[in-house]
Amino acid sequence: MMFEKKAIPKKSDGLSAWYNRVVLEAELADYGPVKGTMIFRPYGYAIWERIHTILDADIRAHGVENAYFPLFIPESFLQKEQQHVKGFSPELAVVTIGGGEELAERLIVRPTSETIMYHTYAKWIQSWRDLPLQINQWNNVVRWEKRAYLFLRTTEFLWQEGHTAHATHEEALACARWAMDMYTSFYRNVLALPGYVGTKSAAEKFAGADMTLTYETLMPEGKALQSCTSHDLGQNFSRPFAITFLDESGKTQYVWQTSWGLSTRSIGALLLAHGDDQGLRLPPRIAPVQVIILPIGEQAAVLTAAQQTAARLADAGIRAQVDVRDNERLGFKINKWELRGVPLRIEIGPREVNDGQATIVRRDTFAKETVGSEAVTARTEELLTAIQSNLHREAADFLETHTHTAITFDTFQHIMAGERGFILAPWCEDPACAEQIKAATKATVRCLPLGAAAVREPCVRCGSVARHRWYFAQAY
Amino acid sequence: MMFEKKAIPKKSDGLSAWYNRVVLEAELADYGPVKGTMIFRPYGYAIWERIHTILDADIRAHGVENAYFPLFIPESFLQKEQQHVKGFSPELAVVTIGGGEELAERLIVRPTSETIMYHTYAKWIQSWRDLPLQINQWNNVVRWEKRAYLFLRTTEFLWQEGHTAHATHEEALACARWAMDMYTSFYRNVLALPGYVGTKSAAEKFAGADMTLTYETLMPEGKALQSCTSHDLGQNFSRPFAITFLDESGKTQYVWQTSWGLSTRSIGALLLAHGDDQGLRLPPRIAPVQVIILPIGEQAAVLTAAQQTAARLADAGIRAQVDVRDNERLGFKINKWELRGVPLRIEIGPREVNDGQATIVRRDTFAKETVGSEAVTARTEELLTAIQSNLHREAADFLETHTHTAITFDTFQHIMAGERGFILAPWCEDPACAEQIKAATKATVRCLPLGAAAVREPCVRCGSVARHRWYFAQAY
Repeated sequence: MMFEKKAIPKKSDGLSAWYNRVVLEAELADYGPVKGTMIFRPYGYAIWERIHTILDADIRAHGVENAYFPLFIPESFLQKEQQHVKGFSPELAVVTIGGGEELAERLIVRPTSETIMYHTYAKWIQSWRDLPLQINQWNNVVRWEKRAYLFLRTTEFLWQEGHTAHATHEEALACARWAMDMYTSFYRNVLALPGYVGTKSAAEKFAGADMTLTYETLMPEGKALQSCTSHDLGQNFSRPFAITFLDESGKTQYVWQTSWGLSTRSIGALLLAHGDDQGLRLPPRIAPVQVIILPIGEQAAVLTAAQQTAARLADAGIRAQVDVRDNERLGFKINKWELRGVPLRIEIGPREVNDGQATIVRRDTFAKETVGSEAVTARTEELLTAIQSNLHREAADFLETHTHTAITFDTFQHIMAGERGFILAPWCEDPACAEQIKAATKATVRCLPLGAAAVREPCVRCGSVARHRWYFAQAY
Repeated sequence: MMFEKKAIPKKSDGLSAWYNRVVLEAELADYGPVKGTMIFRPYGYAIWERIHTILDADIRAHGVENAYFPLFIPESFLQKEQQHVKGFSPELAVVTIGGGEELAERLIVRPTSETIMYHTYAKWIQSWRDLPLQINQWNNVVRWEKRAYLFLRTTEFLWQEGHTAHATHEEALACARWAMDMYTSFYRNVLALPGYVGTKSAAEKFAGADMTLTYETLMPEGKALQSCTSHDLGQNFSRPFAITFLDESGKTQYVWQTSWGLSTRSIGALLLAHGDDQGLRLPPRIAPVQVIILPIGEQAAVLTAAQQTAARLADAGIRAQVDVRDNERLGFKINKWELRGVPLRIEIGPREVNDGQATIVRRDTFAKETVGSEAVTARTEELLTAIQSNLHREAADFLETHTHTAITFDTFQHIMAGERGFILAPWCEDPACAEQIKAATKATVRCLPLGAAAVREPCVRCGSVARHRWYFAQAY
């Protein structure tokens, strides 16, 4: 029957089958014709536009300016920083022909823009008065993938990348921390996604960084997702790219740098974390449509009431839409908008018009209530706030109940073989030891929590001295 | 001396020397390390962000949705439409290596997205209920250039590209016209750039279009600039890509399509057209900074007054900035902001604070006036409106005085050897004849003005029957 729901698999029956199906059915995205690529459909792209709007304001407020650097990077640039080229080489897309001719120097389609930006920073920066130089870009980058995992892992993705240069290491470090604070607040308050902030281990930090800060969230199957990063680049790039400045005493010095980025991967985290068996559940602050209004029947008065309600909500700054399609039955529409995760649904039929009322249904709890027409806007605002909090609370509960401590490797293995999640465990910081942990449990070192207490305990795996407890988890 | 102006060449002494220097000195852009590429510096990128904001609202208001399609197009896609591949082949950038391996099929870095989008449209469109499908993208595209002419001609540029599919040819045509109307209004009312709207000749239309609408502006050396285009694609793509729909009577039909785009080239037109010997003159509606406030001296009261003025202007929705740099003298600052084309300058010194006044200077006329502090906001609004009109009027006068009619080829040649500009002339529409006109005068067919009267006159060059008068000009 027309109004029947397209069957989507249960979320609990297998996360990726549920996820792929929901993303396609909700028309958030589609696969691109080249393996590993994706298409951001209007509904999915609208989420990215919301992210752009919110983060861009935060970035500007900090005095960072937007700019745009070229897509193509001469291959020789990448080779100037050894760790950097080593980290990125396996995933590069290379242009070898341009304007009908074989190119003398191959061009790399940017996987990130450190090298091409810093080549130019060297020209722009002369004296301490030119510092800090703080530039952000919203653009597309390419890191080769054989298979696309929509939003989460794709050959091309969209992101912002901030790149700053400072006179002192302290200033650079403060900037890297500011960026991570901004991201943390964005994840918690807008995406309703709590997570852990910490520093990456030496083996897992960004290729070219002295220190990488990460925000790690937890997905429903108990796997961690690296959700954004901020890097203290030290002078690793300023030395090979000769980015120097005359300090106030007239001495030539190398600048200290940071870079930090948040990508369309964040949309994947958002969808995976909050969805349920009916489909998506979008937190109101990020939802492109916060309220869907469904007129019931085809009476003119009903349609008018629906449009008036939408107009009043819009006046209050609420993103509301009326579904006026006349070839879908109510049940079909309800399922469609539940699938798409719109936080609130308002139903207005002849009875509601008659009684001067509207029925409001929450997407997160399916709680239904009837409200007088004049109270709809105020009640909608309350409910949107309540849904935002509720989704955050649910995610925070999940994170808390799935965060464990393990002192022995038996416990560690037991948890990873069962419900998984994060394990805080003493670790010796030897990469070989981490490799053994991974081989036995698939778990990797996620981060050292910021401000972690110093300890002196046996490493959970090898028994050597561990000076901190680190977060471990299986990861995407 | 520190406050001396960096000498820029006179605009009248040579347009491109003036242009390149001004664009670099005003910090709008820089050359990229790969030949043909450019960097959009924050001040130049801010102009693009203004364009984005304004056009995006117009595009959405028409019911077009934003999305994002992949950068990489399989080579075979381009070959499905013969005119299309022929038109774009010479300027393609080709990825032959991905993820460390030689690719089985070479990938084209998008020069435009018709083929990759329409491949997917075929999947999304099933019935007349799915139409019109109207999608827009803001992205980067690549068309190989050996040398960059900043903003005007670069290997990579930024643009928006709208792509629609309709049930009927009439609807598609109406959409192509709507897009050109939107662009025309944008050019005239925001960029203050009058121009001619018309259809391209068969030889000059978009590779794959049945009909191309163009907006042609006139630059100071009397050369035309194709400033944006909108295409009626007919069924040229829907047939090879098999984009069909079931119409209301259940019959399978091919869709009718349009595409239309406006790029960062528009910034080049803006800068070239309005600048003068002191540098840029930005129309207030597009200027990232509309008012620059210069505090004179270092008294605290002066700085406070400057900040208060900026706050009051900001409250009125005016983009105002205070230049607080303490290492530049007033004369240097004045030259700097004149060079950058900020429409109004407000000077506030001890005398102004004492008298409760401010001095306002127009960038377009250098007219200076003193206004009481309470009147600054209102007067600023008036002056911004006046500057917007004045720049448009100057450009309209220039266009009018540089538009000629020629019935004989002698007159035609005389004009093109002298002051140039547009020539409206009867033309037989034979491409070979246009080639001869070009060989003799460097002028090309720009467009057939919309609504041009039918004539029956001898072609300006060959004497064969001409049925319309077309615009000719030398062009970039």
